[in-house]
Amino acid sequence: MKIEEKKQQAQDWFAALRDKICTAFEKLEEEAAALPELQPGHPVNRQADLPEGDSCFAGAVTGRPGHRPACPAGRSASGFVKTPWQQPGEHSGGGVMAVLHGRVFEKAAVHISTVYGEFAPEYQSQIAGAEEDPRYWASGISVIAHPRSPHVPAAHMNTRLILTARHWFGGGADLTPMLAARRSQADPDAQIFHQAMQAACARHKAVADYAHMRQWCDDYFYLPHRREPRGIGGIFYDQMQFSAEKDSFDRRFAFTRDVGASFAAVYPQIVRNNYHKTWLEAEREEQLIRRGRYVEFNLLYDRGTLFGFKTGGNTEAILSSLPPMVKWP
Amino acid sequence: MKIEEKKQQAQDWFAALRDKICTAFEKLEEEAAALPELQPGHPVNRQADLPEGDSCFAGAVTGRPGHRPACPAGRSASGFVKTPWQQPGEHSGGGVMAVLHGRVFEKAAVHISTVYGEFAPEYQSQIAGAEEDPRYWASGISVIAHPRSPHVPAAHMNTRLILTARHWFGGGADLTPMLAARRSQADPDAQIFHQAMQAACARHKAVADYAHMRQWCDDYFYLPHRREPRGIGGIFYDQMQFSAEKDSFDRRFAFTRDVGASFAAVYPQIVRNNYHKTWLEAEREEQLIRRGRYVEFNLLYDRGTLFGFKTGGNTEAILSSLPPMVKWP
Repeated sequence: MKIEEKKQQAQDWFAALRDKICTAFEKLEEEAAALPELQPGHPVNRQADLPEGDSCFAGAVTGRPGHRPACPAGRSASGFVKTPWQQPGEHSGGGVMAVLHGRVFEKAAVHISTVYGEFAPEYQSQIAGAEEDPRYWASGISVIAHPRSPHVPAAHMNTRLILTARHWFGGGADLTPMLAARRSQADPDAQIFHQAMQAACARHKAVADYAHMRQWCDDYFYLPHRREPRGIGGIFYDQMQFSAEKDSFDRRFAFTRDVGASFAAVYPQIVRNNYHKTWLEAEREEQLIRRGRYVEFNLLYDRGTLFGFKTGGNTEAILSSLPPMVKWP
Repeated sequence: MKIEEKKQQAQDWFAALRDKICTAFEKLEEEAAALPELQPGHPVNRQADLPEGDSCFAGAVTGRPGHRPACPAGRSASGFVKTPWQQPGEHSGGGVMAVLHGRVFEKAAVHISTVYGEFAPEYQSQIAGAEEDPRYWASGISVIAHPRSPHVPAAHMNTRLILTARHWFGGGADLTPMLAARRSQADPDAQIFHQAMQAACARHKAVADYAHMRQWCDDYFYLPHRREPRGIGGIFYDQMQFSAEKDSFDRRFAFTRDVGASFAAVYPQIVRNNYHKTWLEAEREEQLIRRGRYVEFNLLYDRGTLFGFKTGGNTEAILSSLPPMVKWP
C-alpha cells in the first residue's frame, strides 16, 4: 500500500470516528432531555428559576440568561455545530470543528484536521525527522468533553498520524474526575476507563505495551507546579513508527482505531453512570476550580497546543479545549 | 552605599508601596459600600436577590451563594487578607501575599517577595549575568486587579530589583479595559493612564525613555495566537542596570519608585471614574471572555510567571494573578 493510500485511510477513519463520537454524545443529550429535570428540586437546575427559553445553557448554572441561543424547555440542545476551517498564509490544510453546548455537556469539542507544510527552522530540532526534512503532514482527531455536572469526569482523547522524514501514530485518552472524592484509582469510573484502555492494548499486544503507555500517561498529564496529576490517567503513546513493510502500518493503525473506538464506547457509559446525580453548589464550585488546573495544564505544558500554534493551526480549534467556565477564586 | 543597603532600601520601598496600594484599594471598597446599591435596579447586582450574608462576593454575579465567607450586607469586604510564605526546599526567601475579594474588586492581589538562590543550569543562559554566576537575589512587588464591573479596566503593575552578576531594575504597568468599546487609545481611561506613565518618565528623563518603554509594553503584552494586544498598553522596562558609581542606583531607583507611586495614584482614579456605572449581562459575559485572553497571556507568554516557577516561587502567589471567574464559551 502506498503512503498516499495510508494517509487517506487514516483521514477517513478520523472522520468516521468523529461521526461516531458526535452521535454518542448527542444521544446522551437526548436521554437527558427526556428527564423532566436533571436535578429534581435542586436550585442549580430547577427549570422554574430560569428565564424562558434558557433551560439548556449557562443559565442553568447561573440562574441568568447565558450568551448561548435558547433551546426549547425540556429539549436537548440542537447537537454539534460543525465549522470547517482552512489554514491561512503559508500553511496548508484545514479541518472541521464540531462543538456541542448542551445539558449534559456544558461544552464538548470533537475536531478533525489535516495540515501540512514546513516547520520553521527553530522547531525542526524538536520534532522527530524534521531535521532531515522540514516538511510535515499531520492528520488527527481531538476530543474534549466538559460535562456540566461535577459528578461527570471530563475526558480527552486524541489520535493522530504524523509524517515527517519518519511516519508514526500517536495518541491516547485520559479521564479527569472533578471532585476530590472521585479522583481515585479505586473509583468505579477510573476502573472502567482503565479496563477499556487495557483491553484495547491487549487486543494489539504486538504493538501496544499497556503498562508503558499507562505510565507515560501518568508522566505526561502531571502539573509540576501544583505537584498533582491532571486526572486519573489512561494511556498515552507517541512515535509509534511504521515502515513500508507489509503489516507494519496495518497493525499500528488497527491499534489507533481501537483506542478511538474504545473511548467512544467507554466514556458515554461513564457519563451515563453519573449525569443524573444531584449536585451541590459547593461541588459545582469545586468543579470550576478543578477546571482551572485543566487550563493551566493545557497552556503551560500540552504539546498538542504548542504543536498547533507552531504549525499555524486554528487558534479557535486549539483553544476550544478550554473549559466553558472556570474559577481561580 | 553598599549593595546590602540598596537591597534593603528597595525591599522597604516595595513594602511601603504595597501598604499604599492596599490602602487605596480598601478606600475604594469603603466608598462602594456606602452606596446602597452598586447598580440600582439592575438584576446582576440587586441586593435583594442575594442570599443573606452574601452581598459582596461571587453571589453578586451569579445570584447564588459564592464560596467566599459572607460579609455584612451594605458593607465592603473586610479588606486585604495577608498571608506570609516561605520558599521550600533548596530555595530561600519568601514573601507576603495580600488578596482582596470585595465589591469593587472581584479579586485583587498585591504581593511582595524577596527570593534568592541559584538558577538551575538549564535556565542560566536565559538570565542576564547568570552564566557568570548562577546565584540570584530578587525582590519586587506585583499588583493585579480584576474588578467586578466590566466597565472598570483590569490593571497590572510590577517592579523589581534583580541581582545576578549584574544588577538591575525592571517593571512596568499596563491597563486592560474589558469591553471592546473601551479598548481604544482614545478612551479617557487609556489617556489618563498613559499620561501618568509619561509623566513618571518625564520626571526621570536621564534614565527613562518613555517612547521606548511604551513600545516595549505594546510588544510585550501581545498575544500572537490571537493577533491582538492584551490591553491598551502602558510602560515596560527591564535590565535597567546600575553600577557602583554615585547616583547610578539612586536615579534608577527613584524612577522605579515613581512608576509605583504613579500607578497607585492613577489606577484608583480610573476605577472611581467607572465603578458606579450600571452594566448589562452581555457586558459581564464579554468581560468573562476577555479575561480568558488574560489567562492565555499569563500562562503562555508571561516571563514573570515562568521566572516564578523557575525560581521555586510560590505557585499560589504566582497564579493569584489569574482572574476569579473566566469563560471560554
